[in-house]
Amino acid sequence: MSWVPVPDGSGFTLDNLPYGVFTPLRGGRPVGGPRVGVAIGEHVLDLAAMWAGTPLGADLATGSLNRFLRRGPREWAYVRAEVRRMLETDERRRFCERNLHRVDEVTLRLPVEVADYVDFYASEAHAANLGRIFRPETAEPLLPNWKHLPVGYHGRAGTVVPSGTVVRRPCGQRAAGDFGPTLKLDIEAEIGFVVGAPSALGEPVGTGAFADHVFGVVLVNDWSARDLQRWEYQPLGPFLGKSFATSVSPWVVPLAALEAARVAGPDQRPEPLPYLAEKEPWGLDLQLEILLNGEVVSRPPYRDTYWSPAQMLAHLTANGASLRTGDLYASGTVSGRGDAERGSLIELGWNGERPLRLRDGSERAFLQDGDTVSIRGSAPGVGGGRMGLGEVSGTVVG
Amino acid sequence: MSWVPVPDGSGFTLDNLPYGVFTPLRGGRPVGGPRVGVAIGEHVLDLAAMWAGTPLGADLATGSLNRFLRRGPREWAYVRAEVRRMLETDERRRFCERNLHRVDEVTLRLPVEVADYVDFYASEAHAANLGRIFRPETAEPLLPNWKHLPVGYHGRAGTVVPSGTVVRRPCGQRAAGDFGPTLKLDIEAEIGFVVGAPSALGEPVGTGAFADHVFGVVLVNDWSARDLQRWEYQPLGPFLGKSFATSVSPWVVPLAALEAARVAGPDQRPEPLPYLAEKEPWGLDLQLEILLNGEVVSRPPYRDTYWSPAQMLAHLTANGASLRTGDLYASGTVSGRGDAERGSLIELGWNGERPLRLRDGSERAFLQDGDTVSIRGSAPGVGGGRMGLGEVSGTVVG
Repeated sequence: MSWVPVPDGSGFTLDNLPYGVFTPLRGGRPVGGPRVGVAIGEHVLDLAAMWAGTPLGADLATGSLNRFLRRGPREWAYVRAEVRRMLETDERRRFCERNLHRVDEVTLRLPVEVADYVDFYASEAHAANLGRIFRPETAEPLLPNWKHLPVGYHGRAGTVVPSGTVVRRPCGQRAAGDFGPTLKLDIEAEIGFVVGAPSALGEPVGTGAFADHVFGVVLVNDWSARDLQRWEYQPLGPFLGKSFATSVSPWVVPLAALEAARVAGPDQRPEPLPYLAEKEPWGLDLQLEILLNGEVVSRPPYRDTYWSPAQMLAHLTANGASLRTGDLYASGTVSGRGDAERGSLIELGWNGERPLRLRDGSERAFLQDGDTVSIRGSAPGVGGGRMGLGEVSGTVVG
Repeated sequence: MSWVPVPDGSGFTLDNLPYGVFTPLRGGRPVGGPRVGVAIGEHVLDLAAMWAGTPLGADLATGSLNRFLRRGPREWAYVRAEVRRMLETDERRRFCERNLHRVDEVTLRLPVEVADYVDFYASEAHAANLGRIFRPETAEPLLPNWKHLPVGYHGRAGTVVPSGTVVRRPCGQRAAGDFGPTLKLDIEAEIGFVVGAPSALGEPVGTGAFADHVFGVVLVNDWSARDLQRWEYQPLGPFLGKSFATSVSPWVVPLAALEAARVAGPDQRPEPLPYLAEKEPWGLDLQLEILLNGEVVSRPPYRDTYWSPAQMLAHLTANGASLRTGDLYASGTVSGRGDAERGSLIELGWNGERPLRLRDGSERAFLQDGDTVSIRGSAPGVGGGRMGLGEVSGTVVG
């Protein structure tokens, strides 16, 4: 129990303690610069203030988590334990209270300065759905490499934006000679993994070193323009169909908070090559929820995702590619097997064949201007119950 | 004429004046921190020293060009004009001489902190060669989208390394169930474009604004593992086959130095869509040269490249994707029509069918451990003659 009230239904419990970057507001105006904070209930604790005057405090008094993340897993564990003690005991309560802000009295920023952004394609149901939609003539919806390696590609780090950023409907080539605003604007509900500790060029990071490098998770909405993507993607992969915006949630939930969420992933056949084998499972029982204009339209389960985040990391570095603090890699669209568990509109509406029907009677094959999409996430709490991963949200403008 | 001697054959003439980042050495040891310099002949002028004590000087006394680049095109023009005056007239000669280093008495670094790295596929001869090699059964070597848009994809910014960095032969999946060191290690000779001035999210950068954003060019070797690439690339494009290393030359040649190199590009049919149309041509008559263990094995001409750098930039931002200072985008392999003008070994040796025969009698289908590859470049000088783009070099280790 924390002395900070944690209302029923708040996902930001004492067992969670996610990290973000905020600027305090007074009368709606920013007071001072951005700094690192930890969320508890409906409040944010200013960590820069708690460690003011120390080198750690300087690394916390900045506009991203990167300098803190670069300190590595021992420091992450130390700060997490200290913050928990501050919020659980009365020892420093007075001082903490002075540095506690209501979350509606701060501006939340992009938590991480993204170094490289990689997007995977790790959900079997998603890959199979897209195979069935785009290659209906072939009996096997998965391509030959899919069960041998976590397929992935690099995305645009410079257009990773914080939750709440308006998404302008992108223009592009929808087909040969046809340029204009995308007619197939879509979302992809994903889990993102934030790399904290870097690695050296030429030295692969094995599955067992996952938690030595990855700090935590965010929710990701990988906005997609399906017509642009379809026309451009051969042979070098998605480019402008994805690079206009990727939204992430403001709170990074540390892996340390997700111990109760760890599960064995699905059975993998063929057996993964040795560099992809895992000694301890890093499947995660995370539950997503997609809201379109406030209405839940899907509940994708992350736990069935074929490739684990430790396997994705091992693959990403198998060729010796180095990691940098701030690298972000995402799972790709999370889709479960059920119809109402799909993580993108192209799957939910089967590429326009069976549009979603919303409560207001309208239909959606793809997004309309003015639509707001929110993705929420939750995980099992350590002592039972659920903890939250927060929310990533964005509104489309024309 | 500069009072600094410029030996015959030095590409770093007074009309060139490329920018790099260096650390002075004394007795082989670094003296002071890295700073921005301009090359002239076999010397480097320390710009941080020339502007010491000013805000510009502070932006030049850092480990990358980024802070200088962020100042934008007016400042680039001002500094270039001042440096030229310093090196041409005697006004500040004494002071300059004290801040002039022999290039063999400095360490050259990666010139730019790379934000996002994008690689295009802009050479028709290259795309057609790869089409013939990989899809011999189809009559048309180019895919349907190729003449409609500059095909491109994002690469890994964190593994862009300076010339001279040793390239470790990467491991990876060569085929299903087959993991090991690549058996098809290749190069790609490319021209890279360095973005200096950023752009706002949601605002496309037209072809006419190319020189407002792009500062200059580097030589790029986009090392490639063809077996890894072949197995992994469907459907999301190249990933580990490319992400282990991309080498760039240490000297960034400003666009301002390339006025005499500007040419109209090849005729484009079908006519490009309006957002890709150019009012003034940005084709560039750059000549590349590929050396394998010191022997010239190819001379790819850049001037025939189908898509111009202004068109690539307009395409990259057509969906509203923003530019950041330090973004690097490359042309893709530069290949001419001639057999000895191809920019990669897979083309020069036709995927192993007709290996290169070297002077020492050995053959090369792909690179062997110990091989050194250098790519040199040159351009027409303003007053006739040639100027150099320097060199990017790397040696393979097992």
